Amino acid sequence: MTAWERLGETTRREVLQARAYLSVVAEPPAPALARLVAERGPLRAVEAVRAHRVPREVRAEVEARSADACGEAALRAADTAGARLLVPEQPEWPAEAFAELSGARSVGLPGMAEPLALWVRGSGELAAMAGRAVSVVGARAASGYGEHVAAELGNGLAAAGHTVVSGAAYGIDGAGHRGALAAGGCTAAFLACGIDRDYPAGHSRLLRAIADQGAVVSEYPPGTEPRKHRFLVRNRLIAAMGRATVVVEAGARSGATNTANTADALGHPVLAVPGPVTAQNSVGCHAMIRSGQALLVTRVEQVLEVVNPLGTAPVEESTAQHRPTDQLSSDAQRLHDSLRGLDGASDVELAGDCGLPVGRVRALLPELELGGFASRGEAGWSAIR
Amino acid sequence: MTAWERLGETTRREVLQARAYLSVVAEPPAPALARLVAERGPLRAVEAVRAHRVPREVRAEVEARSADACGEAALRAADTAGARLLVPEQPEWPAEAFAELSGARSVGLPGMAEPLALWVRGSGELAAMAGRAVSVVGARAASGYGEHVAAELGNGLAAAGHTVVSGAAYGIDGAGHRGALAAGGCTAAFLACGIDRDYPAGHSRLLRAIADQGAVVSEYPPGTEPRKHRFLVRNRLIAAMGRATVVVEAGARSGATNTANTADALGHPVLAVPGPVTAQNSVGCHAMIRSGQALLVTRVEQVLEVVNPLGTAPVEESTAQHRPTDQLSSDAQRLHDSLRGLDGASDVELAGDCGLPVGRVRALLPELELGGFASRGEAGWSAIR
Repeated sequence: MTAWERLGETTRREVLQARAYLSVVAEPPAPALARLVAERGPLRAVEAVRAHRVPREVRAEVEARSADACGEAALRAADTAGARLLVPEQPEWPAEAFAELSGARSVGLPGMAEPLALWVRGSGELAAMAGRAVSVVGARAASGYGEHVAAELGNGLAAAGHTVVSGAAYGIDGAGHRGALAAGGCTAAFLACGIDRDYPAGHSRLLRAIADQGAVVSEYPPGTEPRKHRFLVRNRLIAAMGRATVVVEAGARSGATNTANTADALGHPVLAVPGPVTAQNSVGCHAMIRSGQALLVTRVEQVLEVVNPLGTAPVEESTAQHRPTDQLSSDAQRLHDSLRGLDGASDVELAGDCGLPVGRVRALLPELELGGFASRGEAGWSAIR
Repeated sequence: MTAWERLGETTRREVLQARAYLSVVAEPPAPALARLVAERGPLRAVEAVRAHRVPREVRAEVEARSADACGEAALRAADTAGARLLVPEQPEWPAEAFAELSGARSVGLPGMAEPLALWVRGSGELAAMAGRAVSVVGARAASGYGEHVAAELGNGLAAAGHTVVSGAAYGIDGAGHRGALAAGGCTAAFLACGIDRDYPAGHSRLLRAIADQGAVVSEYPPGTEPRKHRFLVRNRLIAAMGRATVVVEAGARSGATNTANTADALGHPVLAVPGPVTAQNSVGCHAMIRSGQALLVTRVEQVLEVVNPLGTAPVEESTAQHRPTDQLSSDAQRLHDSLRGLDGASDVELAGDCGLPVGRVRALLPELELGGFASRGEAGWSAIR
């Protein structure tokens, strides 16, 4: 029996209602309210908010909505949308990942705070996902190249048992999710609007597929509109969830750069995929690599090496093809070059051409003949390959 | 009067003849012969070679050719080809650059040695070039992308007064030279064959143009055929000449990687241009960046920053466009987002939407109005941009 089950049904319902109310009453991130909840627990925190007996910082976060906020309505709307409320008291809460958002590493990061609750569609267990999650983010206006690479990475990561976390946007996000789905793997989308909103509209089928094979998640209560600042606020959850964040195409100023900065600040590795230097879409990736913030990655094995250093075979850096002459000594290769240049030559001619002493040439020629690299004919020596 | 002029005409001719002979008698690099010449001077070194009174290591380097070697013939052939012999005794010799090849940094590098002489076509002064040289190297089977980038770099470097050094090969080399020529700048090609050979044949016009605007250079005496190992040996001169080496497209196993390794060993910065991770042509560049051997560069300003750190303006890393709302505080931007979402809204509605206290919203709205970001109408507040 988990601690959550031991709470008893009544308390569990009270906690869910309190957390639903907290989710509605303050615009995330609400660091002062999060601290109050951490100190007093959700039930007493909600009482204090309702009674207007809260510190000034908390009041600023809840004042605008406390008159109308209704946790019950949000829970009903979520139920209608096929979503559930996930709270930190439940074992499925990705506690370790989100603790970083209020921990030592978040000091100095503006507006960092753990989410007070999450709205979830899909049966994927977030805590289990978080342990093996890799975030794949990038430009909405991605190129065909970028989408191809993101899909390949999403596919390879999912096939290796990792959860692909992203934001369900057009472009790189969508390609990353789709790659994971195509591998029959797990993927999670974090939204910047209510869980009942299919945003972007063109991704409604994709969002259903993500919920079927993983989870669609939002910090925002049902009915919340996507607003520009919510994308930035949402990005901290993507950064915290991923054991590493891979950026595939990012302009000089982009949401993906913001996610990467947060991941970096939280101490998570940032990886970036390069592209043509003529493409504006790769400017952000190249800048991150140049500054040392991101490690350049070109394929999924290099990502796996970072997120799972003990569990993967070392990546062969070189995909160079080997030539038969590789086995030869440098003198023998030099002589072989001359054999190819002079067809039917004497040992003295060969020595003059390659500059090796004639005695060395005479010793090497039978070696090359035995190895199948040279043959002796009537006109002299010739190369075979 | 230079030290070379003070030698007197007879001695100068003797030195040239001796160096021509040394150039013919040993296949470069000839480190033992180079040491002998450094110790005894070219005239006495030639006497010793001719009399077969040389250490065993030197004998191995000169044995194959000493019977037939003729410096005079090489000088005549060069003259016919419109080339001259450049020797270390002349002020035009790029002494500083090549000294590295026999200096402390070359310890442990196999086959490093200063060239014994250079054959030169064109009036470009090598010593002057060396001080401002940047090597641009890369794949022969380059892509259109790679050639475009190499030409842009060659052009920008030459326009900034740098000499573009490369190997005159098809692909990246040729594009780098052409970019420099198009800028009316200076460029130098180092060949892996005799100076009388136009290699590759398709670049004979390019080689003439390079000689006209700079120099075509070879360590090999006239008549020498291009052989595979000569390209690798030649690469050390390109690496030593460039204050930095820029690699534009290189396969996993390529001559450009070899040049980069030598430049790195000599302590010269190596820069690499990224490309699509789907292109085999960029595998070598990406590997160098990943390993930390090369710095990623995307445009000529970033190269200039490295080769001329005090003489160039700092490079703006970000080419991001600025939006008018950038000047607003984060609260004001958040409110502006809500204004854009809700057309014609009251201050209380806006506060509920964005979650800011209504008092803060009331303070911010006139600010946004003054800045031209919001307007008050009969239906309420609206966003302007």
